[in-house]
Amino acid sequence: MEAKKGNIFSPNSLGQNVNPDLDIERKNISFSIEHLTNILDGGANNTKLRREVEAVLDADPEFSQENRYFQSQNERYESAVRKTVYLLQKMTKMGWIEDGPEQNYCFKYLTDDLAFSIHLIFIKSILALGTDEQINKWIPLAKKIFIIGTYAQTELGHGSNLRGLETTATFDVATQEFILNTPTFSAMKWWPGDLGRTATHAVVFAQLYLKGHCYGMHPFIVQIRSLRDHSPGQGITLGDIGPKMGFENIDNGFLILKNVRVPRENMLAKFSQVLPDGQYKKQGSEKINYLTMIVVRVNMLQSSIIPCLMKACTIAIRYSVVRRQSELKPGDPEAKILDYQTQQQKLFPQLATAYAFHFICNYLLDIFHRCYNQTQEGKFDLLPELHALAAGIKVITTEYCSAGVEVCRRACGGHGYSLLSGLPSIYMKVVPSCTYEGENTLPFISEALFLIKCYGMAQMGQPLPSSVAYFSSVNFGKCQAQEKKDFLNPDIYTDAYKHRAFRLVFIKNAVMKLQQLVQAGKTQHEAWNQCTVQLTRAAMAHSHYIVVQKFAEELRNHAKESATRRVLKNLCDLFALHGIFSNAGDFMQDAYFSTEQIDRVTETYLDLLAVIRRDAVPLVDAFDFSDASLNSALGSYDGLVYQRLYEWAKKSPTNHQVRRINGIAVAIALALRLV
Amino acid sequence: MEAKKGNIFSPNSLGQNVNPDLDIERKNISFSIEHLTNILDGGANNTKLRREVEAVLDADPEFSQENRYFQSQNERYESAVRKTVYLLQKMTKMGWIEDGPEQNYCFKYLTDDLAFSIHLIFIKSILALGTDEQINKWIPLAKKIFIIGTYAQTELGHGSNLRGLETTATFDVATQEFILNTPTFSAMKWWPGDLGRTATHAVVFAQLYLKGHCYGMHPFIVQIRSLRDHSPGQGITLGDIGPKMGFENIDNGFLILKNVRVPRENMLAKFSQVLPDGQYKKQGSEKINYLTMIVVRVNMLQSSIIPCLMKACTIAIRYSVVRRQSELKPGDPEAKILDYQTQQQKLFPQLATAYAFHFICNYLLDIFHRCYNQTQEGKFDLLPELHALAAGIKVITTEYCSAGVEVCRRACGGHGYSLLSGLPSIYMKVVPSCTYEGENTLPFISEALFLIKCYGMAQMGQPLPSSVAYFSSVNFGKCQAQEKKDFLNPDIYTDAYKHRAFRLVFIKNAVMKLQQLVQAGKTQHEAWNQCTVQLTRAAMAHSHYIVVQKFAEELRNHAKESATRRVLKNLCDLFALHGIFSNAGDFMQDAYFSTEQIDRVTETYLDLLAVIRRDAVPLVDAFDFSDASLNSALGSYDGLVYQRLYEWAKKSPTNHQVRRINGIAVAIALALRLV
Repeated sequence: MEAKKGNIFSPNSLGQNVNPDLDIERKNISFSIEHLTNILDGGANNTKLRREVEAVLDADPEFSQENRYFQSQNERYESAVRKTVYLLQKMTKMGWIEDGPEQNYCFKYLTDDLAFSIHLIFIKSILALGTDEQINKWIPLAKKIFIIGTYAQTELGHGSNLRGLETTATFDVATQEFILNTPTFSAMKWWPGDLGRTATHAVVFAQLYLKGHCYGMHPFIVQIRSLRDHSPGQGITLGDIGPKMGFENIDNGFLILKNVRVPRENMLAKFSQVLPDGQYKKQGSEKINYLTMIVVRVNMLQSSIIPCLMKACTIAIRYSVVRRQSELKPGDPEAKILDYQTQQQKLFPQLATAYAFHFICNYLLDIFHRCYNQTQEGKFDLLPELHALAAGIKVITTEYCSAGVEVCRRACGGHGYSLLSGLPSIYMKVVPSCTYEGENTLPFISEALFLIKCYGMAQMGQPLPSSVAYFSSVNFGKCQAQEKKDFLNPDIYTDAYKHRAFRLVFIKNAVMKLQQLVQAGKTQHEAWNQCTVQLTRAAMAHSHYIVVQKFAEELRNHAKESATRRVLKNLCDLFALHGIFSNAGDFMQDAYFSTEQIDRVTETYLDLLAVIRRDAVPLVDAFDFSDASLNSALGSYDGLVYQRLYEWAKKSPTNHQVRRINGIAVAIALALRLV
Repeated sequence: MEAKKGNIFSPNSLGQNVNPDLDIERKNISFSIEHLTNILDGGANNTKLRREVEAVLDADPEFSQENRYFQSQNERYESAVRKTVYLLQKMTKMGWIEDGPEQNYCFKYLTDDLAFSIHLIFIKSILALGTDEQINKWIPLAKKIFIIGTYAQTELGHGSNLRGLETTATFDVATQEFILNTPTFSAMKWWPGDLGRTATHAVVFAQLYLKGHCYGMHPFIVQIRSLRDHSPGQGITLGDIGPKMGFENIDNGFLILKNVRVPRENMLAKFSQVLPDGQYKKQGSEKINYLTMIVVRVNMLQSSIIPCLMKACTIAIRYSVVRRQSELKPGDPEAKILDYQTQQQKLFPQLATAYAFHFICNYLLDIFHRCYNQTQEGKFDLLPELHALAAGIKVITTEYCSAGVEVCRRACGGHGYSLLSGLPSIYMKVVPSCTYEGENTLPFISEALFLIKCYGMAQMGQPLPSSVAYFSSVNFGKCQAQEKKDFLNPDIYTDAYKHRAFRLVFIKNAVMKLQQLVQAGKTQHEAWNQCTVQLTRAAMAHSHYIVVQKFAEELRNHAKESATRRVLKNLCDLFALHGIFSNAGDFMQDAYFSTEQIDRVTETYLDLLAVIRRDAVPLVDAFDFSDASLNSALGSYDGLVYQRLYEWAKKSPTNHQVRRINGIAVAIALALRLV
């Protein structure tokens, strides 16, 4: 079956053929793609089930994403609402149960095209923060979508510092109601999804005031729109916050409350309640909740953020074997751009990163389950470590995935700017993850706090949590590797990352500087502020070490001589060596690596690019994205890049308004002749 | 005049007041903002003229950008056409002559809202490539916009490698015509601006065929649309390429030619012509043209790319003194986020970068003028150096500006994702510059070629171009700086950059590796490919050195004790030390810097952040952008951030379609109750 370079005079060229330049990459593959896919899915059964679900969705024209890139913000929103409603009906029809695996596959598959995502958070927050009575009252209404909810926490003037929220809820003993108010401009709720046009109810976070005294932030259920005609309630001003970078399917909104009254029972009261006489009562521990928030965050990384990088790699690597440009050897045909070292150096580290982060999420989920089992016995020992690890991994994953997607997009040259490539949308989806769920500087600082605390424990000879056990080492000496092959030893590079993290946490760069500044007369908070840049570097180095270490450990799960292990080891080596190559200064401190060793690392890293080149297409095929889910003219399985770009461009509304525009252009031309 | 925190119950809060948190930053300024503005404008007269032009444009409601963020691609295009036509009329009315300074200020000021930008390239290309006869025929038509032109070079399958273009132009002696064809899918013209809907004519680049022999790429004027009704000509298929990331005001298009005939006179024939009998004749030197292309590129950097970073810095820094979040000191009011070291570390290096690149463009323009004067005497000695420098500076400027804009955007937290912040649009405008005018890998490789050639010259003891004169040094030894203050000596850090570049060019990393690979039996082109990653690093290091060196030289233009020099020196120091801090490994090679010295650099760099903090707002005020030109709810001069976000969001079409959407939401809710 020989596919020919598309001829423009046979327009129906999108047939069964595969571009031969892509096809040949799939000959004589050195490992089992299917086996790798199964590993990524967590087992062959999962792969099977996922494919069944995706096949059902692909076969249903209601879920077509064909026009997505041509739609306005309004159209995207309306389409998302329509698809979500249809999906809920479909899932019922298919017998896919609530919170079952099929449902998760659906949500993951259709992620960018659904609405009501914050409605789910609304439900989760009631389940987490409400009493049994409140759960019994609200959850059935919400699940049947008699009411649609949003989660109104962030304000115009406050995001990360929840204590700074300004919305107030004052208890009125006489009427047994809370009176909610937005006292200033900056206090209006801003950003909540599903709020702009959809939600009828909101969990509103507000400072609780009882008899003039503030008791801090608490959650209140507030009806914001009529169930009859969807008009805003008394004292409520709300709307959409307008155009954004990405998230066009979601109606982020604003909400102003002016003397809005809700009954006493509307304060979610699992952990604290207000008695009828206005007394405040705290009860229970929120720690278990906290654990739930962590697992939500890790699931988000694995089901929504890392797949962005996997998709971008799939698109860019497939495109790079179809695109030919210039000659590598004079007189030869133009070369595939993936054969250029500079292109490999852009894309392969991203590919390795996608695999590395996939495995680190598995590790975090493992700790989560251990931690969860402990809490069932009333023990919370693992919680601080899990919290710190999850914070650090959230940051490094979102930073690397965002940067990596943009590298992939730019590696596609001009066509990477076309929305039809799929890449701009992926970037707009991934990069906000650096900001939401905690702007990345803050989780790093919270991880750094944990590291510093562990430093103190190490000093006092106390036992350390396992992820920081290396803190009790006193001296790492120097790297012993000499030859290039030594640097392909995971023990060698894992130790190097350990040394780097250790040094950045302790020596000069964080703990010691903090102590020196305080000794020199700075106040604790001044000293802290002057160390935060170095503390965030330390947190990054520690997280980076954990990712390398766990990737190396994952290799042990595979038979020593297996092909799967070989390709995974190549990726692990590449991830680790690329990190050293890109941050050489950190590794050369205290002469841990000499100049000669760093030169050797660079050579070994560059040599690896050529090794991975052979497996590059199979390695992205293993991610197993359907064409519909990639929705990319550059990245489809068949590699018919140029034909698809042309076919899709012709559908653009910009071409259907031509007649009118022509009229304008002619009118202008005529007008100008009169100038 | 005390401005109060906005009260939502007085909606017209956008008055004369300035947010007091911003206002206080402008008290007791340590230098003259106006003087710095004059320096950036190239003299007080320029500042005056620029402001006069901008005032005229600001006062004219036709140029309002108020609705830009709410417009569709179509609306943006139509608005751009309308504004451009109006601007041309206005310039005539104002007596602002063609190519005069006022016109440049207009184009720079309205850059994102104009159309016909490729029409100007069409004109320039005819002037550069046409004979006097051709110029006399086409230029008056184009200038009066009797015809609208585009520049059709890039194809679907070919961008950077011009020799690979596939479009053909075959001469037919019988009819004295060229027959133009698009032989394959990948050969269709793709991307040219103004082509999608506007242009009537195109300069089409095609492989010239005479009697079956290919003579390479040549330019042909082809009429593509009717002057009467704008319909496509015989054999021509064209349209818009659809939605893109950014550039919504421009109608990038595609063009397919099928046996399109143009007369022999339509080949632009300044440098080569086809005689009536089909003979090919070359004439003249294209070198002078080449020079013009370079100056166009440098002007683009200075007038269009660097201002993106300046605008982003202005928005992010002003916002960061208005936004307050968390306490620095327990019990204090929430702190301005610019007082956090982590925020300073994000923004101040970008501010320093904007200044650094402004000055490097001045330096390039200087060389350009010297080079131009030489060519008038028939000498082209400076051309290779200018070409290499311009290539390298193009890459480093576009890379740093793009990354810097995104850092600024993300430093604004959630609000940086709102289009109303202005920042997403700035990113979409700046980042394509990394791809157009030569995808950044390629100019770097071409710079590296120059560096390697100079290496050979240095080996043979030949005199070197001034920018690479340091190649003749044999040994840089080690950095002699000891104390923190030593690292604020421009000689110290300029030498460090010189050493880094030298090492990356020669030792191991490029030249030597190339030689070794060839000696080890690799072919020249294999060896070259395996060195390209290191060659691009070498090119980056050389360009970085030049930027640091020229910024340091700029300081000498200012009186030693002047306040202007002081603030510029702080920025120069910060730019240089941030570069060392971020690339420490390069500087530690061969132990040029010891671990202790790098630690000292880090401390010095971090201390500088606090020094620049005081001048941060005045330093962005000196960029002198009007509110209209920033078009940012976060960045206006008055700092009324939250009020403006709210006022602007209310105007969003998403809020005017609420009634209909409400209907949909209600219908859905009802439908779901039936599930």
